[in-house]
Amino acid sequence: MQALLTDLYQLTMAQGYWRGGLADAQACFYVHFRENPFKGGYAIACGLAQLAEQLEGFRFSSDDCAYLATLKAAEGVPLFSPGFIDSLAGLALTVDVDAVREGTAVFPYEPVVRVMGPILQCQLVETALINIVNYQTLIATKAARICEVAHGPVAEFGLRRAQGPAGGLFASRAAIVGGCASTSNVEAGRMFGVPVSGTHAHSWVMAHDDELAAFRAFVDTFPHTSVLLVDTYDTLKGVRNAITVAKEMEQRGQRLAGIRIDSGDLAWLSVQARGLLDDEGLGYVRIVASNDLDEHTIQSLYEQGARIDSWGVGTRLVTAWDHPALTGVYKLCAIRKVPEGRWEPQLKVSEMRSKSTLPGLLAARRYLDAGGTFVGDMVYDEQMPPADDLIIDPVDELRRKDLAGCESMGLLEPLVRNGRTVAEPASALEAQKVTRESLGRLHPTNKRLLNPHSYPVGLERALLAQRDRLLKDSLMLPGNGSQGA
Amino acid sequence: MQALLTDLYQLTMAQGYWRGGLADAQACFYVHFRENPFKGGYAIACGLAQLAEQLEGFRFSSDDCAYLATLKAAEGVPLFSPGFIDSLAGLALTVDVDAVREGTAVFPYEPVVRVMGPILQCQLVETALINIVNYQTLIATKAARICEVAHGPVAEFGLRRAQGPAGGLFASRAAIVGGCASTSNVEAGRMFGVPVSGTHAHSWVMAHDDELAAFRAFVDTFPHTSVLLVDTYDTLKGVRNAITVAKEMEQRGQRLAGIRIDSGDLAWLSVQARGLLDDEGLGYVRIVASNDLDEHTIQSLYEQGARIDSWGVGTRLVTAWDHPALTGVYKLCAIRKVPEGRWEPQLKVSEMRSKSTLPGLLAARRYLDAGGTFVGDMVYDEQMPPADDLIIDPVDELRRKDLAGCESMGLLEPLVRNGRTVAEPASALEAQKVTRESLGRLHPTNKRLLNPHSYPVGLERALLAQRDRLLKDSLMLPGNGSQGA
Repeated sequence: MQALLTDLYQLTMAQGYWRGGLADAQACFYVHFRENPFKGGYAIACGLAQLAEQLEGFRFSSDDCAYLATLKAAEGVPLFSPGFIDSLAGLALTVDVDAVREGTAVFPYEPVVRVMGPILQCQLVETALINIVNYQTLIATKAARICEVAHGPVAEFGLRRAQGPAGGLFASRAAIVGGCASTSNVEAGRMFGVPVSGTHAHSWVMAHDDELAAFRAFVDTFPHTSVLLVDTYDTLKGVRNAITVAKEMEQRGQRLAGIRIDSGDLAWLSVQARGLLDDEGLGYVRIVASNDLDEHTIQSLYEQGARIDSWGVGTRLVTAWDHPALTGVYKLCAIRKVPEGRWEPQLKVSEMRSKSTLPGLLAARRYLDAGGTFVGDMVYDEQMPPADDLIIDPVDELRRKDLAGCESMGLLEPLVRNGRTVAEPASALEAQKVTRESLGRLHPTNKRLLNPHSYPVGLERALLAQRDRLLKDSLMLPGNGSQGA
Repeated sequence: MQALLTDLYQLTMAQGYWRGGLADAQACFYVHFRENPFKGGYAIACGLAQLAEQLEGFRFSSDDCAYLATLKAAEGVPLFSPGFIDSLAGLALTVDVDAVREGTAVFPYEPVVRVMGPILQCQLVETALINIVNYQTLIATKAARICEVAHGPVAEFGLRRAQGPAGGLFASRAAIVGGCASTSNVEAGRMFGVPVSGTHAHSWVMAHDDELAAFRAFVDTFPHTSVLLVDTYDTLKGVRNAITVAKEMEQRGQRLAGIRIDSGDLAWLSVQARGLLDDEGLGYVRIVASNDLDEHTIQSLYEQGARIDSWGVGTRLVTAWDHPALTGVYKLCAIRKVPEGRWEPQLKVSEMRSKSTLPGLLAARRYLDAGGTFVGDMVYDEQMPPADDLIIDPVDELRRKDLAGCESMGLLEPLVRNGRTVAEPASALEAQKVTRESLGRLHPTNKRLLNPHSYPVGLERALLAQRDRLLKDSLMLPGNGSQGA
């Protein structure tokens, strides 16, 4: 990881910890989010592979240190002391990281990633860590929603509208993790070993004397895989030109793979195009649709009887158009000032209980019913192993669910130990399988596009008591200001 | 540029052009967008520096070529021929690129970037080019809108919520171009030579025995620049703790720089905090506000009388929350099949005239009134130099404006010639000056947040006639399908 790819305040705090002798105080942070994106019922965890790789390479180069030495607190006053900068130059990460497997369905309030180690190190890795996990989880979730409603394969082709070239690269990977069959992004194909797809643009047609000549030239080059874009001038005339070419191909023993419609009323045009193709015995020619699609437009097209076999999705997928950031946060949940001492749970109060954080060495387990369906998740403090299987809603204590008798499995797995990756990161296609299995085990009501049934995530009862006790205590501490109130 | 950071269809088309002997046919493409983002009145062009750098380094490495050779059109059939792949291995860009200066206010329909050269090369650079220009223009525009309404300095601190780490890097640069005073992103500070800012997080407070101890430890470390975050537990108690520390600092001859409020009702809390500080003679302590801010919340806070001196803006800026993609497109506008021959204008028809493209060797000029205010832009075909200063709305021909007597200047400047950068790319801070000047020359009605007056961009009359003639012709061409209609 480029160690400077962080917020300045991580470095100012680090100098504060270093100077105050707290650099090696042990801390535990966890990543969680407060609401599912897209008004949906779940999120698909993603980004853990890139995270592991970035942590593995974390270090401050001599250039990094030289740059930090140039920063000023005020005219003539360096922001960072030479001693502190020297300590960064020699820093090797020793943190432990636990995380859910890529592709796992995750829910508000539960820990998705947990980092334990010297507090200074935990802060230095925060910004890049949550950037990576937030963005890739967001895109994998959007892709999962789109693929859940699409009956045919979905190709991601959003690179041109992604938020930066590298944003596009990881958007492509996350889209595959979420369920897309392929990407148009060639570099993503190479880097992540995922299928690439795409044929031609309107400019190909415009660069030839006419559309028919353009189609002929294209299928001559790619007799096995041509999908002809039919809407450069007039869509149904374009379909007729594609039919002419398809019939010519048949005489050569070839088959046109498909046509693509990228504008206009996709429901009406696809029905018309299907009719024209079928009338000519071209039932095998697939219809691909694109043009600002998302899960809602795809679902609506099916409801209107559209005859579309596969989908190209770009802008609205790779930018997560209707919810362009997952607001995952990284919060201190426990601290240990003395080596081998007891971890002291910590929390951040908020004006709303729903925004207060959870205190403790957080862990989570997921319960499955006899049919293998996920029925609820418990968050607990590892220092207080759960005595039973009751989960209690963190915001409304009246909502409780007893999961006794259900099987359960831990959600967090070791990813990094003492700064080194200990789990082989999943490939995009492996993570896609995890997504598919996760979604298969979610009840359909949790997967509805709109107003999904909320999946139960609750606190173990000792954790709840610990949270409530600390909430009260934190407001009473004299040093937190009550003397002046 | 990583040459594979492109859509697969650029490469399939390239092989088609190569095979069809059209690889060196000369083409002209232009980038434009159809509507201003954020329902605003302008966009701030950005990304040209990164674009120039990427084009400068464009090449297919032997690894790239080896990967392309692995792709299959069908079982056992390679997608790309060895001859084509060899041609890529030896490819050096020879394109010419013209672009507006970074920081220039630009508007729908006009060319922002123009690429001329062999059609194969023009296609290969398309995806990365529009990715870069779309994203950075989007963020620079959002930043400009925010900075236009903020009376004090705006710090960008969105890295944790940006769409990928590298997305965050260029978001930070674009935010500076748009007008932000600083970024929290340390790597952006180093790479782009821009100011960095930031002090501490809630975790700093939580890691100490109490808030007062945390504040004391922080100002001891940074007596010159401390901004204390006061809302970890209870905001107004936090302000009182900050006041205690500020008074202690005064006895040491130091001054507390500021406090930051990151939650709750910022209007009410800032007024209360200002009162508490002023009552203690701490009028010099600045109040910084953050928490999901954008141009609308900042404007609303002022209207409510908030006492906020400077702003930290993150998620909503770096993701362009309410409009997360600029839908800039790259369209073929002219082609020349014979070297030194005449350029033939090209257009893409659409079901809506507003989505049809403009044909010709497009250029643009901007008119200024006697006071230096921008009054309208003309788009014309360089092969038909304008005979007068009349501009005609591309969608509604009844809307015309005669700009005779106004000064004018060309909008596009040479950026790349024969594949090499010919203009020194602007630094972020230089481009920020261009933004400031551009916005200063826009009429206030064009800068309103909501329902701005639409800035006049029109076609020169010969270009309009050319567009309308080609629109008719394109639908008549027999090869475009009318024989079957």
